[in-house]
Amino acid sequence: MEKQNSKRELGVTAQSEDYSKWYNDVVHKADLAEHSPVRGSMVIKPYGYAIWENVQKILDQKFKETGHENAYFPLFIPMSYLQKEAEHVEGFSPELAVVTHAGGKELEEPLVVRPTSETIINAMYSKWIKSYRDLPVLINQWANVVRWEMRPRLFLRTTEFLWQEGHTVHATHEEAIEETMKMLNVYRDFADNYAALAPVVGEKSDLERFAGALNTYSIEAMMKDKKALQSATSHYFGQHFAKAFNIQFQNKNNQLEYGWQTSWGISTRIIGAIIMSHGDDKGLVLPPKVAPYQVVIVPIGTKKIDDKAKVMEAVNKIKQELIALGVRVKLDDRDNVTPGFKFNEWEMKGVPLRLDMGPKDIDNNQAVLARRDISEKNIVSRDGLAENIVKLLDEIQSNMFKIAKDFRESNTKEVKTLEELKEYFSDEKNAGFALCSWDGCNEVEQQLKDEFRVSHRCYPMNLEPQEGICIATGKTTMKKAIFAKSY
Amino acid sequence: MEKQNSKRELGVTAQSEDYSKWYNDVVHKADLAEHSPVRGSMVIKPYGYAIWENVQKILDQKFKETGHENAYFPLFIPMSYLQKEAEHVEGFSPELAVVTHAGGKELEEPLVVRPTSETIINAMYSKWIKSYRDLPVLINQWANVVRWEMRPRLFLRTTEFLWQEGHTVHATHEEAIEETMKMLNVYRDFADNYAALAPVVGEKSDLERFAGALNTYSIEAMMKDKKALQSATSHYFGQHFAKAFNIQFQNKNNQLEYGWQTSWGISTRIIGAIIMSHGDDKGLVLPPKVAPYQVVIVPIGTKKIDDKAKVMEAVNKIKQELIALGVRVKLDDRDNVTPGFKFNEWEMKGVPLRLDMGPKDIDNNQAVLARRDISEKNIVSRDGLAENIVKLLDEIQSNMFKIAKDFRESNTKEVKTLEELKEYFSDEKNAGFALCSWDGCNEVEQQLKDEFRVSHRCYPMNLEPQEGICIATGKTTMKKAIFAKSY
Repeated sequence: MEKQNSKRELGVTAQSEDYSKWYNDVVHKADLAEHSPVRGSMVIKPYGYAIWENVQKILDQKFKETGHENAYFPLFIPMSYLQKEAEHVEGFSPELAVVTHAGGKELEEPLVVRPTSETIINAMYSKWIKSYRDLPVLINQWANVVRWEMRPRLFLRTTEFLWQEGHTVHATHEEAIEETMKMLNVYRDFADNYAALAPVVGEKSDLERFAGALNTYSIEAMMKDKKALQSATSHYFGQHFAKAFNIQFQNKNNQLEYGWQTSWGISTRIIGAIIMSHGDDKGLVLPPKVAPYQVVIVPIGTKKIDDKAKVMEAVNKIKQELIALGVRVKLDDRDNVTPGFKFNEWEMKGVPLRLDMGPKDIDNNQAVLARRDISEKNIVSRDGLAENIVKLLDEIQSNMFKIAKDFRESNTKEVKTLEELKEYFSDEKNAGFALCSWDGCNEVEQQLKDEFRVSHRCYPMNLEPQEGICIATGKTTMKKAIFAKSY
Repeated sequence: MEKQNSKRELGVTAQSEDYSKWYNDVVHKADLAEHSPVRGSMVIKPYGYAIWENVQKILDQKFKETGHENAYFPLFIPMSYLQKEAEHVEGFSPELAVVTHAGGKELEEPLVVRPTSETIINAMYSKWIKSYRDLPVLINQWANVVRWEMRPRLFLRTTEFLWQEGHTVHATHEEAIEETMKMLNVYRDFADNYAALAPVVGEKSDLERFAGALNTYSIEAMMKDKKALQSATSHYFGQHFAKAFNIQFQNKNNQLEYGWQTSWGISTRIIGAIIMSHGDDKGLVLPPKVAPYQVVIVPIGTKKIDDKAKVMEAVNKIKQELIALGVRVKLDDRDNVTPGFKFNEWEMKGVPLRLDMGPKDIDNNQAVLARRDISEKNIVSRDGLAENIVKLLDEIQSNMFKIAKDFRESNTKEVKTLEELKEYFSDEKNAGFALCSWDGCNEVEQQLKDEFRVSHRCYPMNLEPQEGICIATGKTTMKKAIFAKSY
């Protein structure tokens, strides 16, 4: 048996030492992704892509349950389409990749590689929608998009990324608002109950709004370095794009009216959020519901032929029991690395639960379970083991949510004045989210951005209504905002 | 109630009148796809995309069962990468779309929008693979690719299309050959038992081989106009790309060796094959296993309030029973169109089975079932209806395979001489597949292509070995080939 433990470097930089280096180490050593030869573009490796597949499966089902269908629109968009909505083109122009030559010729009109698909989708919608009977249009697309990125970081900011974008059209303002909030809630549900991110949910400020939207809502998760990461967005467009693209329908009173629209999306960035929200100095920690493998089984003491046969029979049996209960399980039966090497590797890869079984365990009708979330190792009975593992995975899932929620709450400080806010964020190391009364002042907001690299994350929802004094304007307001440094 | 029957034109051009127009009519009227404003690019509409989602689900499971993992590689490929394999770049150069500007600047090296991903994937593999312990690498990617298309046709030839591409590396020639054949067989299984295409399976000729491959295998389905459609391919590369991209590994004898590779793919073109293999003059006919809806329920005689309540209760009940059995079912409860309108629409959309239920049916403990594949309408008992529908869907699936197989076999003619072959294909209307002894002659093959637009489709596998005289060279050979006109 080769001793690979010493050969490979499995450790990562400590979070406390250099958080950014810790992140890069985890992404590489957990085998999630790497940079490609094209600057800014990443290769998502099988283990990282398997997380994305789980995200897709969960969300796709929720989209369908809420009445949406998938479709596919073209990668290339004529430059002139982007220019139809002024704010939109202004927002995206600096990030565009442009095809100028194709089929051996220079193109008459350059084609933009989609940075988002509002313009091409709305061009189609204007052809498809004639009557209120054609509404609502509830379409989602899973696709790749390209936004040229000057400072790429794996998953967080890449030139090409994968995402889904929902684009809907409704007969009334009210229905479109309802859709915007419904999909925001789908993301919140996913973030809380699957990714265990426990984000703050709320509306964006004027400055942070999506280019072309009337209202943008987001979920804002807190990373372990206490910065915010915008993890999904839901936009209400009113009739903005409908007017730019002439999406008109005959309403019930036989009048022509512009459609009311929304869009909403989540991207491979969410994998960055999962890494940074849960990871520790041993590597990745994955919530069971999105983990490629929920349980890894490591056979122990298999050097003797007799023992090996006995152990392999036992681990294969529990593996089958787990599969039958719908658990995603990996049996690590490699014989060229030691159990210790396997422990380190699966810890690095964040598998929620490890099950070890050796000849003695079998004799004693037991197994060893090691939890990744709380670094606990227990000897448990073999009786009812598979069922107990299913329960334990639920417990791990809930515990990870609780830890994330507690962490975010205990690192959120309520501040009463602008000075207090500035002082809070002067402490680079300890500052997290600041909550303050805020009724909107673009100048002060911009100033905080420029001077402290601190941004308005959202007006959080579901707070107790409370009157306060806006820290920027000094006016009385019912609104509160979260400020934070962010990714 | 509006009379929409007369308003909308639901019919399609007869196949016998203009097959190509019939195809376009079906694609549009069944609401599968349409052209986008960017020439050659299509919009896949929800009903068409739902077929693709079923194709993906079925194949993705088969890929995973055969040990493959999904990953994601970049859309953009540096031009210099494509140039590393001479045959490959020659094959793809005329079809490339090129990004020359991005982020507001001209790029130093133009980026190609991937026409296929061999080059970028192999560049990564050369970094990842060091030892025989790293092999096999069994990776698949679901992605969009772009090949500039001069004569676009929806699904069949589009500038951008969706596909999967598997790319594997093995330690030996034998293993790579085994993989090539294994994946060819996955496609054959899918084509026979899910898409009901009953294709011929075999190896491509020198002229028809993929650019850079040593061997290309394909499945060739016969369309209703008796032309062939290449529906999936599996390639054996030997060490061609491994040498171009320096994919070397230390083998068990501690020697450096180049990897042995394969790739294999299927695209949204398969939807074109499904349309043209099964469709008729009433529109689309979908095999149950890939149909978005396997059963559509049409409530009948719901004008009276009392009847409506009774009928809706009954149809909702059978709907729930079918869902519980895993059937994909659509209840068409629109009240602004007549049942007759619905019949036509779902016929056009190729739903395998229609279930009608009215007040009288309920009184008589019965329902009406209309099969799409054989235009049969039967009154059946309500007892055990859901279970019987499941059986009937299987029967429809088998029957569609049988019809496709019979059609292909009865339109395949064995020819003994080149003159006979030419004569056969001179009859534009009746010519299908020609089977002949053929040991390979590029000149004659090219001549047939130029003069008769007839191409070598494959050397079919699973034929009884039989000695014959090659119709091109006059030499004795054991090999036989299929020639046909093709898409």
